[in-house]
Amino acid sequence: MSINKQQYGQFRPLTLDQVKVLGFFGSFIDNIAHKTAQKLFDKCVEAGMRDQIDLNRPNPGVKVSFDPINTNVTPQMFWDSDWGKTIEVAAYALYHRPNADLEAQIDEIIDIYGRLQDKNGYLNSWYQRIEPDKRWTNLRDCHELYNAGHLIEGAVAYYYATGKRKFLDIMAKYTDHIANVFGPNEGQKHGYAGHPEIELALVKLARATDEQRYMDLAKFFIDARGTQPHYYDAEAIARDQDPADYYFKNYEYCQAHLPVREQTEVVGHAVRAAYLYAGMADIAAEYHDESLQNALKKLWVHLTQKNLYVTGGFGPSRDNEGLTFDYDLPNETAYAETCAAVGLVFWSYRMLSTDANREYADVMERALYNGALSGISLSGTEFFYENPLESRGHHHRWQWHRCPCCPPNISRLLTSIGTYIYGINNQAVAVHLYCSNQAKFKMDETDIEISQQTNYPNDGKIIIEVNLSSPKEFTLLLRIPSWSDSFELTMNGEKSLITQDNIKDGYIHLLRKWKAGDVVTLDLDLSVKRLYSHPNIVVNQGRVALLRGPFVYCMESNDNGKHLNSLITTIQTDFDEVQIDEFPQIIGLEFKGYREVTETNNLYHFNPPRNEKTTLRAIPYYAWDNRQAGEMLVWIREINNNI
Amino acid sequence: MSINKQQYGQFRPLTLDQVKVLGFFGSFIDNIAHKTAQKLFDKCVEAGMRDQIDLNRPNPGVKVSFDPINTNVTPQMFWDSDWGKTIEVAAYALYHRPNADLEAQIDEIIDIYGRLQDKNGYLNSWYQRIEPDKRWTNLRDCHELYNAGHLIEGAVAYYYATGKRKFLDIMAKYTDHIANVFGPNEGQKHGYAGHPEIELALVKLARATDEQRYMDLAKFFIDARGTQPHYYDAEAIARDQDPADYYFKNYEYCQAHLPVREQTEVVGHAVRAAYLYAGMADIAAEYHDESLQNALKKLWVHLTQKNLYVTGGFGPSRDNEGLTFDYDLPNETAYAETCAAVGLVFWSYRMLSTDANREYADVMERALYNGALSGISLSGTEFFYENPLESRGHHHRWQWHRCPCCPPNISRLLTSIGTYIYGINNQAVAVHLYCSNQAKFKMDETDIEISQQTNYPNDGKIIIEVNLSSPKEFTLLLRIPSWSDSFELTMNGEKSLITQDNIKDGYIHLLRKWKAGDVVTLDLDLSVKRLYSHPNIVVNQGRVALLRGPFVYCMESNDNGKHLNSLITTIQTDFDEVQIDEFPQIIGLEFKGYREVTETNNLYHFNPPRNEKTTLRAIPYYAWDNRQAGEMLVWIREINNNI
Repeated sequence: MSINKQQYGQFRPLTLDQVKVLGFFGSFIDNIAHKTAQKLFDKCVEAGMRDQIDLNRPNPGVKVSFDPINTNVTPQMFWDSDWGKTIEVAAYALYHRPNADLEAQIDEIIDIYGRLQDKNGYLNSWYQRIEPDKRWTNLRDCHELYNAGHLIEGAVAYYYATGKRKFLDIMAKYTDHIANVFGPNEGQKHGYAGHPEIELALVKLARATDEQRYMDLAKFFIDARGTQPHYYDAEAIARDQDPADYYFKNYEYCQAHLPVREQTEVVGHAVRAAYLYAGMADIAAEYHDESLQNALKKLWVHLTQKNLYVTGGFGPSRDNEGLTFDYDLPNETAYAETCAAVGLVFWSYRMLSTDANREYADVMERALYNGALSGISLSGTEFFYENPLESRGHHHRWQWHRCPCCPPNISRLLTSIGTYIYGINNQAVAVHLYCSNQAKFKMDETDIEISQQTNYPNDGKIIIEVNLSSPKEFTLLLRIPSWSDSFELTMNGEKSLITQDNIKDGYIHLLRKWKAGDVVTLDLDLSVKRLYSHPNIVVNQGRVALLRGPFVYCMESNDNGKHLNSLITTIQTDFDEVQIDEFPQIIGLEFKGYREVTETNNLYHFNPPRNEKTTLRAIPYYAWDNRQAGEMLVWIREINNNI
Repeated sequence: MSINKQQYGQFRPLTLDQVKVLGFFGSFIDNIAHKTAQKLFDKCVEAGMRDQIDLNRPNPGVKVSFDPINTNVTPQMFWDSDWGKTIEVAAYALYHRPNADLEAQIDEIIDIYGRLQDKNGYLNSWYQRIEPDKRWTNLRDCHELYNAGHLIEGAVAYYYATGKRKFLDIMAKYTDHIANVFGPNEGQKHGYAGHPEIELALVKLARATDEQRYMDLAKFFIDARGTQPHYYDAEAIARDQDPADYYFKNYEYCQAHLPVREQTEVVGHAVRAAYLYAGMADIAAEYHDESLQNALKKLWVHLTQKNLYVTGGFGPSRDNEGLTFDYDLPNETAYAETCAAVGLVFWSYRMLSTDANREYADVMERALYNGALSGISLSGTEFFYENPLESRGHHHRWQWHRCPCCPPNISRLLTSIGTYIYGINNQAVAVHLYCSNQAKFKMDETDIEISQQTNYPNDGKIIIEVNLSSPKEFTLLLRIPSWSDSFELTMNGEKSLITQDNIKDGYIHLLRKWKAGDVVTLDLDLSVKRLYSHPNIVVNQGRVALLRGPFVYCMESNDNGKHLNSLITTIQTDFDEVQIDEFPQIIGLEFKGYREVTETNNLYHFNPPRNEKTTLRAIPYYAWDNRQAGEMLVWIREINNNI
């Protein structure tokens, strides 16, 4: 049964091949296509991941030892996911910039996976080669379905990018096997992934293959999650383990503590949470499932009103790589894993499927341009796993990471950013993100082209041109970000008066019969804004964050000298936009302030510091630690010297 | 060979029975004698500690399971130390306030220990009853010598308090056994305690028994520490364990990474560090060991100039219960174990043995009145293990703790505080601490009585009266704390002009032929002082701590309402001393400031908070969390509204 794409009018993404991205993100994609994609591939090979999947090579055995604490697990179990994401990045990179060499390397990996696949479709290198007797015995800890999810995403991407079906067919066959093993029926396992991921992957697979049954499998995994009797309890007992011995104490860690529709608070491992909610949002949209949508709205409010860093990162704690308690948002020790911010982009975008509300798009943009983008260096070859909002200079970009989930994750997000710009249904085109690009797609039988020309986010002016095979009535939705105090809109050169009637949930709704060559120009106000925190975020009291458009700014000691916490801005200060020597493409901010000077080297002393006038400088957060190692600070001390 | 007490003129402590403490600490001692001492005893019995030591009861076996990570260890191994400290507290309590019931209970425990002791002297309930085949196989992890140390301290205290020798004899016999097993000679083990403690205990035993050989054993343990080939390596290999598998990675954790004379930085577990340095300081003084003294001076500077909380607590990290990196002094997550501040009092006092310098006494006083004293509630029945300098209201006093080291530690310090007030040698009496008390001792053949009458630290006036059997020349040293901007001194009612010639290292030196009835009156300035931090303590920038005499102050939400980090003081503010209703004995501070008021409940928002004038209130840090649960803050936001 194929999918009824028009069923509920929800917004769906364009596919990779429908959007050509230029401008701000285009240069990141260039970098990734040019350098990062190959680096990811080489790192997989270097780690021994090719040896593990290749039946023609000696069985590698356990190369990465089991975790001494959570003894069920070794990161080696997740190597298939690294291949999945590496293939996905390579796919997007190849689409952007043909590279016969890389394509041949990927094709070889796909051939190897083809040989590895069992006759019944099963495909997991760890459980085929290292622990064959343990298949499907520990969904809670061992990432078996998670690996499948990433391989599926890789296969779908490679299909869109190259048109080659081989990997897609391999993964469809494996998915058919999974759909036999798992499901609601008698004789089937009622389990689900400890690390969500396969849910959103199955939605992609369903859309790419037009097979409803993959969507239904995703829905099954979501519906089964957290129900009683608890699958993970039964599974542990079957392994002769006491469920109470679970290292993470309770199933909040993997968001399986309650059925998903009863979950109201974002808990546990941040990346798992984001991936799960993204899958839930897909299913909520596809099945018009209001109970799921209601749960998601509660989870959204809990995250964004009590647990989100201003950078769009979340999950403050290293211990569980996730959430702790409300308003616990320490800056220096923020874990805020790159993957969590990437996952929040996934989730936010999918919340827009049923609800074109800037609340979601603003958070998506915030996470994208800050907490996610900080995960990759300007060179495209170094990475952050954690993304603190303050550093004394000890936190530096990695060439690589022992758990290499983040580098391919930020790379695949950036290279596929075209699929996040728009949402399309049969009556409307929503523009969620602004970035130079050219999109081509069909609405009903009409071929539509929409292009954006803009220097956004350095500049607020966006020129949107619509071309189409014949005039057609539809609504163009344009987001007005909450940080933009004002905007101007022209339609074919005429200044257009937009009233509140034209604006719903932060989107301008332009309903008209569009004809070829129509041009809309939107000019957003990019003045620097000061952001303040809820007083429950105690570490941010007396401090301000600076925002210019989608960018959160930070100070670095490279521009300001040592002791960033000795620097003070005043509430009355204006900002100048300046060029930072090392970053020709980046707009820096310069503003007046004070430097506290302490005359003694004593740990504690009786004399207050002296205040010297000085000039402060800030750069966009994502660009930090691209020069020599040093301090960084997002939340800057501020005083109101009128009191 | 007996000890030459006058050998080098170093200052030695008075013993418990030589000082009767009244005033500020007297009321704490009352509480402990009245309630805490019995509670400590009852908690030991309740945990099963009596069962473990009593051969007439069934062997309890492993009651507290081994640590799942550091699998060599269970806290049950340390139960002898809990008995040791409980006996020590009971001893001091009994001296202060006779209690036949408690004394009978302690006598019974001593009888039980007497029965338990092996013929050869060995005495350790874990290794006699639970793991008899593992004696002296793991000094690194298993606290075998540490337990001996605490039992020795208990025995010495019980001897001074009650005059009963039985426990002292038991422990002397055990120590003779230890001195056979351990030492520099062939056939002896060259090991030393993973958790220092026995070193300073042996010094006390040597002084109580006048036996030099116990002092020499302490010196051996200190000299052997950290030497190569490394004892802990050999010991691990003998256990068939790989030394590299040590849970704490390297021997910095237990300060055995280098020979002690080569150690220059305070590292590892904070309590172990403090106990070791205290023992080193004893030995440095007793043996006039300059190389040891030089190492201690470096360690002191490293601690006090880079790693000490303003409260005198240290060791910021829960992970190693100890040190991390220089200037890492987070307030809210401060571990700052009560025992570490208690240990710093031990160490500081012993630094004064060879060097009457207020640098040491000021730190001793700071730790005593703040980071240590906070460990026990005003009621004497509830305790802190960790002593953060900021709390959102989640940190509360415990009725008890699974690792009950802190309650008896702060209790024994307070009940024995009389032994920290003075340092005596054959030419001088140094007064390090001020507190109402009466001290009686001999100098040469002269009987001397010194009394202090004072409401210190609420009031700065201290009346010191000297009585003696016949006039005698000696120097009375009086500390002028660094927080006191000025002072007045009278001698027998005459205002005395003190010049810099009379002051050395922060002590007034009063050399005269003292006669009975001489009265010195010292009046210290107790004005509130503002303390500022080194800019490397980033979390304290823009903040001030308030000091009045020895007390560091803090704000509680009980007095100031919620959101303490929304409150601001100005550098120009004066302070009023006020009475806090619930604490009649305590001087509170009241001062003008501002409250930032935020009108929205949003996590982030564009409008700066409004500043409302308000009155702020602070209480001494040690008194916090003695009312209903709430927020607490030491480092208060401060602005200079003249800039």
